[in-house]
Amino acid sequence: MKFFSDNTAAVHPRVWQAMHAADAPDSGYDGDALSRRLDEAFSTLFDTECVALWAATGTAANCLALSAMVPPHGGVVCHREAHIEVDEGGAPGFYTHGAKLMLADGDGARIDPAAIRAVIDPIRNDVHQVQPHAISITQATEYGRAYRPEEVAAIGSLARERGLGLHMDGARFANAVAFLGCRPGDVADRAGVDALTFGFVKNGGMSAEAMVFFDPSLADVARYRRKRAGHLQSKGRYLAAQLLAMLESDLWLENARAANAAALEIAAACADRLMHPVEANEIFVVLSPAEQDALRAQGFDFYDWPAPAGASGAARLVTAWNSHPAHVAALARAIAAL
Amino acid sequence: MKFFSDNTAAVHPRVWQAMHAADAPDSGYDGDALSRRLDEAFSTLFDTECVALWAATGTAANCLALSAMVPPHGGVVCHREAHIEVDEGGAPGFYTHGAKLMLADGDGARIDPAAIRAVIDPIRNDVHQVQPHAISITQATEYGRAYRPEEVAAIGSLARERGLGLHMDGARFANAVAFLGCRPGDVADRAGVDALTFGFVKNGGMSAEAMVFFDPSLADVARYRRKRAGHLQSKGRYLAAQLLAMLESDLWLENARAANAAALEIAAACADRLMHPVEANEIFVVLSPAEQDALRAQGFDFYDWPAPAGASGAARLVTAWNSHPAHVAALARAIAAL
Amino acid sequence: MKFFSDNTAAVHPRVWQAMHAADAPDSGYDGDALSRRLDEAFSTLFDTECVALWAATGTAANCLALSAMVPPHGGVVCHREAHIEVDEGGAPGFYTHGAKLMLADGDGARIDPAAIRAVIDPIRNDVHQVQPHAISITQATEYGRAYRPEEVAAIGSLARERGLGLHMDGARFANAVAFLGCRPGDVADRAGVDALTFGFVKNGGMSAEAMVFFDPSLADVARYRRKRAGHLQSKGRYLAAQLLAMLESDLWLENARAANAAALEIAAACADRLMHPVEANEIFVVLSPAEQDALRAQGFDFYDWPAPAGASGAARLVTAWNSHPAHVAALARAIAAL
Amino acid sequence: MKFFSDNTAAVHPRVWQAMHAADAPDSGYDGDALSRRLDEAFSTLFDTECVALWAATGTAANCLALSAMVPPHGGVVCHREAHIEVDEGGAPGFYTHGAKLMLADGDGARIDPAAIRAVIDPIRNDVHQVQPHAISITQATEYGRAYRPEEVAAIGSLARERGLGLHMDGARFANAVAFLGCRPGDVADRAGVDALTFGFVKNGGMSAEAMVFFDPSLADVARYRRKRAGHLQSKGRYLAAQLLAMLESDLWLENARAANAAALEIAAACADRLMHPVEANEIFVVLSPAEQDALRAQGFDFYDWPAPAGASGAARLVTAWNSHPAHVAALARAIAAL
Repeated sequence: MKFFSDNTAAVHPRVWQAMHAADAPDSGYDGDALSRRLDEAFSTLFDTECVALWAATGTAANCLALSAMVPPHGGVVCHREAHIEVDEGGAPGFYTHGAKLMLADGDGARIDPAAIRAVIDPIRNDVHQVQPHAISITQATEYGRAYRPEEVAAIGSLARERGLGLHMDGARFANAVAFLGCRPGDVADRAGVDALTFGFVKNGGMSAEAMVFFDPSLADVARYRRKRAGHLQSKGRYLAAQLLAMLESDLWLENARAANAAALEIAAACADRLMHPVEANEIFVVLSPAEQDALRAQGFDFYDWPAPAGASGAARLVTAWNSHPAHVAALARAIAAL
Repeated sequence: MKFFSDNTAAVHPRVWQAMHAADAPDSGYDGDALSRRLDEAFSTLFDTECVALWAATGTAANCLALSAMVPPHGGVVCHREAHIEVDEGGAPGFYTHGAKLMLADGDGARIDPAAIRAVIDPIRNDVHQVQPHAISITQATEYGRAYRPEEVAAIGSLARERGLGLHMDGARFANAVAFLGCRPGDVADRAGVDALTFGFVKNGGMSAEAMVFFDPSLADVARYRRKRAGHLQSKGRYLAAQLLAMLESDLWLENARAANAAALEIAAACADRLMHPVEANEIFVVLSPAEQDALRAQGFDFYDWPAPAGASGAARLVTAWNSHPAHVAALARAIAAL
Repeated sequence: MKFFSDNTAAVHPRVWQAMHAADAPDSGYDGDALSRRLDEAFSTLFDTECVALWAATGTAANCLALSAMVPPHGGVVCHREAHIEVDEGGAPGFYTHGAKLMLADGDGARIDPAAIRAVIDPIRNDVHQVQPHAISITQATEYGRAYRPEEVAAIGSLARERGLGLHMDGARFANAVAFLGCRPGDVADRAGVDALTFGFVKNGGMSAEAMVFFDPSLADVARYRRKRAGHLQSKGRYLAAQLLAMLESDLWLENARAANAAALEIAAACADRLMHPVEANEIFVVLSPAEQDALRAQGFDFYDWPAPAGASGAARLVTAWNSHPAHVAALARAIAAL
Repeated sequence: MKFFSDNTAAVHPRVWQAMHAADAPDSGYDGDALSRRLDEAFSTLFDTECVALWAATGTAANCLALSAMVPPHGGVVCHREAHIEVDEGGAPGFYTHGAKLMLADGDGARIDPAAIRAVIDPIRNDVHQVQPHAISITQATEYGRAYRPEEVAAIGSLARERGLGLHMDGARFANAVAFLGCRPGDVADRAGVDALTFGFVKNGGMSAEAMVFFDPSLADVARYRRKRAGHLQSKGRYLAAQLLAMLESDLWLENARAANAAALEIAAACADRLMHPVEANEIFVVLSPAEQDALRAQGFDFYDWPAPAGASGAARLVTAWNSHPAHVAALARAIAAL
């Protein structure tokens, strides 16, 4: 019973189906009929004109978007525990040609205007110090927290005021939207986001994420950079097929809701152990080493997590679109019984 | 009846099958059981210890390999019409951080020791000029020519003598081996190749190429660079599955033979029009604009190609593992009838 | 009697004097009074508003200018024998983060609109091929040829028409202007040049070249890039002093005229040996190995040069602002006597 | 009476003298007689074979050295307030092609093995996280503190143990050695330093710093990178002359002692205001805004500094090799009288 991560879950049957349907020959790269439907599909979803490009990984999508927004001599403000800082093997430095990540603080891997200002205001406006050019936030955050529309909008306002781009790492954008119950655009372009990495791999896809650009000039750059990074797959139709399958009949939302519901079921069983409110599909719980052992002995797999102050241990539990109800219920029972 | 390119052909049923079989959850990235079988599978194929890593595209595989062999201040000798020079959107410059491609000449996009020496011998051994650090050759070449084992070995000898790495872009390595009838290692490590991009996408795969490193220290670098480039997919097992399916029962060879046979059938029908000997699955033919129109009117699709001296037009015809026998026969007849 | 290069000649006494005068303490970097006078001094010289920044070397100045004009995924058209291609150790690749030099042909290291179009017109307008973003020409060229105002203007027109930036490597800009007898702006901004590297080191300076930007937005980028490249010297006033000393009383022009006159004196003595018309301070002459030996035996030093077709040898002779009249006369006599 | 910074002080007369003596023509770049004496001069100073290269700025010297030690996908541990992190405009990211600075804490901008381990031990040894490849320390630190030989050696031991390179930013190396009264090698190669940036510009030079490599293979790389960065000046003899003049008769040490003595004189007058022990030529003092105004009204210039907790203001005072004794005494009196 695996609660390691949503990023290895099986591919959804309807995604498989769409991929098979793409087997018929078509133009290469992103010239196929499916890839060419993406702009419209995402524009409909976001109620606004946008440009959508596929990429195989969230790391690539994040960094291609940033590279279109930030010059090599610039900087990007993000949370100290943002995925781009901690877990992308230096990809932002590669894609931006050495731009600097500027680290802000905040509970639950969230940042707000005050935290951003605390980073950028002390920067002297001279050539000796790297100047900020963009802000990147993660929705839902690395701790499973969701920014509310007004919270994103506040960051968006600050970004505009300071002439900064706003990027959103939405590896779990679907889970955040499912939790918030809002329209996707409420936490994206209508809140000032210029470029969104919209994740599908963790949510039932196989190998396709979307970069959604609300500013088409960014997409024009990203298109060249995607090829230059070796991310323009010749059989791109199989990636477009995944995205379209997920958008149809709101599969992306349905899957995210399923994962979130599973997380809430577990969270409800251990409310007193929660390190962060559960607003997506990740649960961070205080668990002593002995308790961890006990759960593992019952067949539950998950990651250790650094213990918070005063605790002897902690763990991260992640649910997925296909978390088995019986496994979820079993884990909830087991953790409640500790 | 499409003879545009092999790079958009459908995925082979046994590859699909293997991908479905990978649906069961496993570790992420390349920690899954399938990815961990790659070294052994390729070592068996090449009769020597090697390290194999998947990547989604040939561009990525080529450039990751080069970036492990060449410092940013170095150079790579390749043919003037090599894919890395002409068709990768500047990816070598991105991955190597600005290393220089040094262009050699040769018929059929082939280079030989004399052509390489003509490029590197005039380079002054001082800091004002970029020094060569590697050679890259394409097997089969961009014009569908196959290097014989002794030809690769001659380049390999020169590389060793001058302290240069040797990279092979094997986007159509399978087609070359099928044509040569040799063991894969005869034109790879036994001929001095340090790193091989072994192509599967054009040959029945969907989204997985292999980087095969005969020098494990290169693989150690490439592993970090792959993640840094956003090419370490979290559901990597679906890529490994493709490669393993192709290696099993020599599907890679069987598919390449089918594509080559189709190309030979067409070539036989237009021997007097051939611009290059057909040694893989590409056919370059002199075709006047009117002849091109005539073929297209009969339903055949293909790329225009720059006309050779004295001709009014030319075309590139590419067959694939699944070129339909009836289409191939029809094209052969049509072209013979011109 | 050294005719190797102008790039090692002594520093002009008035430059020394100005440097000493800068010894008084002042603000660091480019905040000193001298550095702050540069914009005005160059604006006066060019009869138009421009921004001028110092840099220690021509390589740095060229590449900083290019890096402000060309994105990492773009390309720069230049002559196949341009200094940026041949003799800057890959600096353009470093500064532009991997942009591609696109090589054009032309006699005397000169390019013209036809040669440029021959390079850029075949480039497919798609992401698989690097797109041109700028043109770089050298004034005077690497073979001592000077572009006429209308020749620069023709390139400038093409640049504007195609949306390309125009950079001029003016390592010997002074010599070209001295030869042409025009106003500096006639072969710079009035001819469509966006950024000029104006050389002073070869012309009596010690360690300061100027980047002159006719588009101030390029200067804004270059300023950050200069610091980022470690080229913002803390005692920048000693560099500004050199440039201002050279501009005062047209010392730059006086020195260039002296060097040109010396070159013409030598050229007149060997008109039948000239490989290129002498339009600056470089003389390329056919000289057999025996003749070279004879000259060297008389105490003349110079570089060998690749022999043109049909000749057994050649040499490059370079005069400088301080070439000793007796040495020049002696060389003219010696070469005439061969 | 300027106490802003040592980096704008006048050039020492014996440095001027040596530069004038270099006016005679010689080979270009670093082929001249002076540049070729550097290895020996520095080897004598450090009692060991080493390779020394000039560069115009500390930023360039630091970053060229780092770029020879750290691959683009690697990291460098340094103090959170290190010059390379705070004041080089992102140059480390440029020169290393995007490597990551990993920030350690410590009083007085000093780091020790425990602080370094606190940074590197939590890094997972996998491709998702950037791996450290070097450590960089500043001697004297950005707060004017000097590492003792045994402190450097402890860091050197850790570096060797973990396979990391050790770089020392010695912009004020002379001041540190003058304070410590040790041999230069005691805090350099004998303590495990692989590459040292030895500063001369702040200490009486004009435009030359030295990169001293105790591992010659690093110098081989740096040599190419220096040209590639446009830092190989053609009249390099004027830079070599500065370095040799400073080494002769221990001018470097004499100048540093003078600056240090001036700093101590001021420090003695305000011992109760010192934020850091004075071990070089920088004095950080608590000074209320009113006190700052009072000093400025008397003609003293200096930088504001962020106030420490509980104080309303602070300032940085820097002395130089040529700080006027009367000015120093006056400042000491004035600050004591506050």
